Amino acid sequence: MGLKLKMGMVGGGQGAFIGAVHRMAARLDGGVEFVAGALSSTPERAVASGRELGLSDRRNYGSWEAMLEGERALPDGERIDFVSIVTPNHVHFPVARAFVDAGFNVVLDKPMVHTSEQAAELGALVEQRNVVFCVTYNYSGYPLVKQAREIVRSGEIGDVRKVVVEYNQGWLADRLEATGQKQADWRTDPARSGLGGAIGDIGSHCEQLVSYVTGLELHGLCADLTTFVPGRMLDDDANVLLRFRGGAKGILFASQVCVGNENDLRLRVWGTKGGVEWHQEDPNALVVRRLGKPEQVYRRGNEYLGDAAKRATRLPSGHPEAFIEAFANVYRAACEAVRSGAGAIGPARHDFPGVEDGARGVRFIERTVESSMSEQKWVTF
Amino acid sequence: MGLKLKMGMVGGGQGAFIGAVHRMAARLDGGVEFVAGALSSTPERAVASGRELGLSDRRNYGSWEAMLEGERALPDGERIDFVSIVTPNHVHFPVARAFVDAGFNVVLDKPMVHTSEQAAELGALVEQRNVVFCVTYNYSGYPLVKQAREIVRSGEIGDVRKVVVEYNQGWLADRLEATGQKQADWRTDPARSGLGGAIGDIGSHCEQLVSYVTGLELHGLCADLTTFVPGRMLDDDANVLLRFRGGAKGILFASQVCVGNENDLRLRVWGTKGGVEWHQEDPNALVVRRLGKPEQVYRRGNEYLGDAAKRATRLPSGHPEAFIEAFANVYRAACEAVRSGAGAIGPARHDFPGVEDGARGVRFIERTVESSMSEQKWVTF
Amino acid sequence: MGLKLKMGMVGGGQGAFIGAVHRMAARLDGGVEFVAGALSSTPERAVASGRELGLSDRRNYGSWEAMLEGERALPDGERIDFVSIVTPNHVHFPVARAFVDAGFNVVLDKPMVHTSEQAAELGALVEQRNVVFCVTYNYSGYPLVKQAREIVRSGEIGDVRKVVVEYNQGWLADRLEATGQKQADWRTDPARSGLGGAIGDIGSHCEQLVSYVTGLELHGLCADLTTFVPGRMLDDDANVLLRFRGGAKGILFASQVCVGNENDLRLRVWGTKGGVEWHQEDPNALVVRRLGKPEQVYRRGNEYLGDAAKRATRLPSGHPEAFIEAFANVYRAACEAVRSGAGAIGPARHDFPGVEDGARGVRFIERTVESSMSEQKWVTF
Amino acid sequence: MGLKLKMGMVGGGQGAFIGAVHRMAARLDGGVEFVAGALSSTPERAVASGRELGLSDRRNYGSWEAMLEGERALPDGERIDFVSIVTPNHVHFPVARAFVDAGFNVVLDKPMVHTSEQAAELGALVEQRNVVFCVTYNYSGYPLVKQAREIVRSGEIGDVRKVVVEYNQGWLADRLEATGQKQADWRTDPARSGLGGAIGDIGSHCEQLVSYVTGLELHGLCADLTTFVPGRMLDDDANVLLRFRGGAKGILFASQVCVGNENDLRLRVWGTKGGVEWHQEDPNALVVRRLGKPEQVYRRGNEYLGDAAKRATRLPSGHPEAFIEAFANVYRAACEAVRSGAGAIGPARHDFPGVEDGARGVRFIERTVESSMSEQKWVTF
Repeated sequence: MGLKLKMGMVGGGQGAFIGAVHRMAARLDGGVEFVAGALSSTPERAVASGRELGLSDRRNYGSWEAMLEGERALPDGERIDFVSIVTPNHVHFPVARAFVDAGFNVVLDKPMVHTSEQAAELGALVEQRNVVFCVTYNYSGYPLVKQAREIVRSGEIGDVRKVVVEYNQGWLADRLEATGQKQADWRTDPARSGLGGAIGDIGSHCEQLVSYVTGLELHGLCADLTTFVPGRMLDDDANVLLRFRGGAKGILFASQVCVGNENDLRLRVWGTKGGVEWHQEDPNALVVRRLGKPEQVYRRGNEYLGDAAKRATRLPSGHPEAFIEAFANVYRAACEAVRSGAGAIGPARHDFPGVEDGARGVRFIERTVESSMSEQKWVTF
Repeated sequence: MGLKLKMGMVGGGQGAFIGAVHRMAARLDGGVEFVAGALSSTPERAVASGRELGLSDRRNYGSWEAMLEGERALPDGERIDFVSIVTPNHVHFPVARAFVDAGFNVVLDKPMVHTSEQAAELGALVEQRNVVFCVTYNYSGYPLVKQAREIVRSGEIGDVRKVVVEYNQGWLADRLEATGQKQADWRTDPARSGLGGAIGDIGSHCEQLVSYVTGLELHGLCADLTTFVPGRMLDDDANVLLRFRGGAKGILFASQVCVGNENDLRLRVWGTKGGVEWHQEDPNALVVRRLGKPEQVYRRGNEYLGDAAKRATRLPSGHPEAFIEAFANVYRAACEAVRSGAGAIGPARHDFPGVEDGARGVRFIERTVESSMSEQKWVTF
Repeated sequence: MGLKLKMGMVGGGQGAFIGAVHRMAARLDGGVEFVAGALSSTPERAVASGRELGLSDRRNYGSWEAMLEGERALPDGERIDFVSIVTPNHVHFPVARAFVDAGFNVVLDKPMVHTSEQAAELGALVEQRNVVFCVTYNYSGYPLVKQAREIVRSGEIGDVRKVVVEYNQGWLADRLEATGQKQADWRTDPARSGLGGAIGDIGSHCEQLVSYVTGLELHGLCADLTTFVPGRMLDDDANVLLRFRGGAKGILFASQVCVGNENDLRLRVWGTKGGVEWHQEDPNALVVRRLGKPEQVYRRGNEYLGDAAKRATRLPSGHPEAFIEAFANVYRAACEAVRSGAGAIGPARHDFPGVEDGARGVRFIERTVESSMSEQKWVTF
Repeated sequence: MGLKLKMGMVGGGQGAFIGAVHRMAARLDGGVEFVAGALSSTPERAVASGRELGLSDRRNYGSWEAMLEGERALPDGERIDFVSIVTPNHVHFPVARAFVDAGFNVVLDKPMVHTSEQAAELGALVEQRNVVFCVTYNYSGYPLVKQAREIVRSGEIGDVRKVVVEYNQGWLADRLEATGQKQADWRTDPARSGLGGAIGDIGSHCEQLVSYVTGLELHGLCADLTTFVPGRMLDDDANVLLRFRGGAKGILFASQVCVGNENDLRLRVWGTKGGVEWHQEDPNALVVRRLGKPEQVYRRGNEYLGDAAKRATRLPSGHPEAFIEAFANVYRAACEAVRSGAGAIGPARHDFPGVEDGARGVRFIERTVESSMSEQKWVTF
């Protein structure tokens, strides 16, 4: 493997959103070269998209099956080092399974797959094939989320008592899917999106953020999912009570019908001695509170931060970093794992979410839906 | 009745907090004269407190019973026009009942009483004696809360879908009651505070704020109350899912163990066409969001505001008003009702919370506690 | 002198703004009784205003001269303890001089008088008659301004290098005075307002705030005053460079044509080891920065604050205080001086602005105008 | 010229800051390939740096002269399409002149050169050789700065009356250059940095931001530059009064000794009908104020924004973009000019700062220094 890793991509062609983000994130540090793709489920669109993006004709595939075959056939050193899978959710499982099975390292968008059975199968296969497997829960890539994690896990705020995590969007407040808007279309379709609407698309980020920062294990939950927009088939609003092992309590709410809110993900954690608060739309600040002391605002890029936050930073303080850089931090860590040959233990050695995080996220979606469908009763996690 | 109303007070002596606030609020507009008091349950302390505050010896009573008797005996025009009851919660009911029964107008702190039975009895008596009865849910006195109400109720943001109301305090994160601190002492004692800890003390403000702004009727709730501080007998943390008639959903959370948070009461309401957001610690601003438009920030004191917000304002824009002025707005409205002889229909004609709001608040505490004690199940409201 | 001080007022009748603020501020703590007034320069309006406010006919005077005479004739114990003068600026001097000369304590709005000669005369008279004399630079009454003062003066942020003070309003962006609006009318009239427009009305607050917080002495300044609104006779915008003894530099800008800004007074001070930042529209927070440390936000009502900030506070943290309370702090301190019989040394013993601060403010207006008129050259202060 | 432009770089090797930013910015959109460099003035360090960054040995030059010669010798299609010059300031002129003279397109960091004579010579040469010449005033690359420009220039806020631009940093509050820190070292050295310290390094950004947003032409200025840190040879603090043709006034202040401030660049512009406010550390929001209307907050990524802001955006609303993306917008526009063969009229056709902006910036530095050295008198611009 040379200095630059060779990336392939499945999905992310014309009309897609997250594919372009993955490419920018991968490219940002100059360590990844985008060399192959099957960018759409429609062969013509796949090829047209690849041309636009400058893929060579030879590696601009019409389908992911062709790409898998083509890349396998290439000699070591030319073949892709990893594949990024950025399709709608329902395609995640077959593609990820096939690439992992063929020994490729995989970067996969969240939520990982549709069911816990698929997650288990994939997990076992990752282990067996010993590949690097990364699920792009990108919000944990933010430097100050890493700082929050360090503060909470080091015990600085004492034992965690309460967590509030919320994610308020408004873009699906109307029936956008009826207009043919591609993002809205598949995300509101159970066949492609899976069991969860808002709870799957953004609630899953909340779950992972809490887990990443606090290390708390979810023990039970009680969910009230709602579909507010008439004609929609999946929830567009989710309110969930949480209980963690050890006694901490929490609230998670996620909605896509909060008119005027954009991408309002917030995390608050309180312990016996203090609290932390972070807001994705103002990501360069972390509010830290301590018993009897003035509130502190930690800012990215400063010497007083911990190692994880510092490593995840590219610019001096006051020169704001944002979404793409956080996403790039996930890529950078996964690429380090690929370069170092860490295989299945990549996430444990480097700092990125892996197949276990993905599996937990799938289970979270299943259990919230189950709770909500069972008269919003409490279910154990 | 002359220009200045004569106010009596029960409770609010040395060591109390809210009594002084009531006095400042009553005094602010110059229309109220504080003339009589039974300021403590301990006669000596009552009298000492009254002296400090400049009460004449004659009307500086050692007990509320003595005050009731003394004031009744005074001729019309000299007798108090209303009594403010600012004792710990368990004293609310007997005192309020006795004064109402004797035909006095009453201003009472929240939560109104301990049980729905007491609330019903009090409600009937208020009707029968036709007195002005005000419960000081002071947060609805803020001008921009009134503006939020106008925006929501006028349909400007469409049909309400979702409400998030929260109230985060940290002052009881440790076992402050063990130090003898008076406020902490009675508020954590079921005998004096009632069934609810945090849910009663501050959760009840949340319930009223939602009701005041949206007019939504609560239909069901599912509550998870927790006592985090060892040795405490009441909840110090509450997480509640809400359902309203007509289909709106909500979340209410209130805590007194959020280390570093002060008096962090926030309300967010989203409808089909927009949303509003208000924060008690930054009370001169109201964020208003509308589909496809830039976010707006309404500020107190401006011409573009509605009548209710304007009437509740004393200073030009940019000259911030705050807690005391909002409290004074409740007093001002109740005093208008007293002056106009509105009697029991005061709250309907003037803009202040009445006995029905108080009763609904008591019921809210009962039902959340019931839900939490019944394995955190849903209960109808 | 009894428990309650007796206040008289000159000015502040119908159509006035600041008079009502003075009355609320005086009343807030319950230690002042408003007993006499000459509330307008028009006798009929004066009397009508006094009736509205509940003054007894006997002490509801038609002119300040009549009031002075009437109050002098009253026996000790009945006579007013101090007079608040809240007229347009041009009336300040004759009224203040006459009352001081007659031995009355005086609370006077800013700017104190029109000229340094008047200021000197008044200063001498205050000394001679040994009365309490307070100039209501109300912004220094905010608790966190007092905290900023303590932090800066204690050396916590090292030697002060730079000060930025600004005051942006927009209410005179159009020719409001042409509509007959009373506030705009006299404030833009040199005969009544004095030499300065924006620089006098609000720039003078900036000067005092810097002086109060830092203790720095102004050494030189260079001012560019502008009248933007056609037909206006006084400046409505001021940009000033400052130099302080000892080498610190500063910028002061004040404007009344900043459309959309309300009462945007901000102070920033940086020293060799840190900085402080305060904003009047968010007055319960003080940002404190220190070399190499996370930013801190001090909030009113907390134990970690200094004595001056604590004494100037009435409510627990998170229960915001604002403009009226700050104003009331000036009154409270001046009243303490009156009660303690401090006389002319009141401001030195208690914490409020006195005749020397008023004189410095007048000089500041004169010197900025002089600089601006002399081709915006530097002048020594 | 193929799809990807070939970029060379002079400067930006080990220990540099801004070179890495240029490379990330150039790389972000995938349209630029970094193929050649002379990354340090020390040949060994240049070569080591190039190796680290993956340059081929053949085009990893030991000096800019060698690079110029080497690249000239390459055939069209292989030769670099443009060179980015990211050295300390004193090297800008000779390198830029030589590359322009050889017909290369140039991207150059600010301030452009040391003197107006150099600027004029460079301007003439750019014209003569008809090359694309871009000066990376990166802050004008922010989408909401472009929106501010559109709002101001369209007349939405009326005629501009007042501008306040400020840039507060604290990183040079101590004598950092004495520690050998590379950035501090050359920036405080007149031989390398030029006449201006803070005024050159960051004040020049202020000047350009005002010019870009408002189009106002500077007419006169009065500057008070200070060197606060003992032993430093250039100003580290600048306070400047501004006058524009047509009557608008302004204030510009820039400092590198504001302890605790990071990269606090703010712009406020007020006109007869409204105002705009933008803050670099919160770059996804633009506050817009209008006479008599609620304040608005425009946020990046929304449909209601103008074309320039939309084109400069890569992510949906709420997914924050920041410093690198703004920088990349300058690169993207310059690259469009290169691709379209716009030559010297690139900046007029595409949206990026050119040699005239660079020249104006140099003149601004010269005139502020001149004013400050001449007893802080007013000078015409």
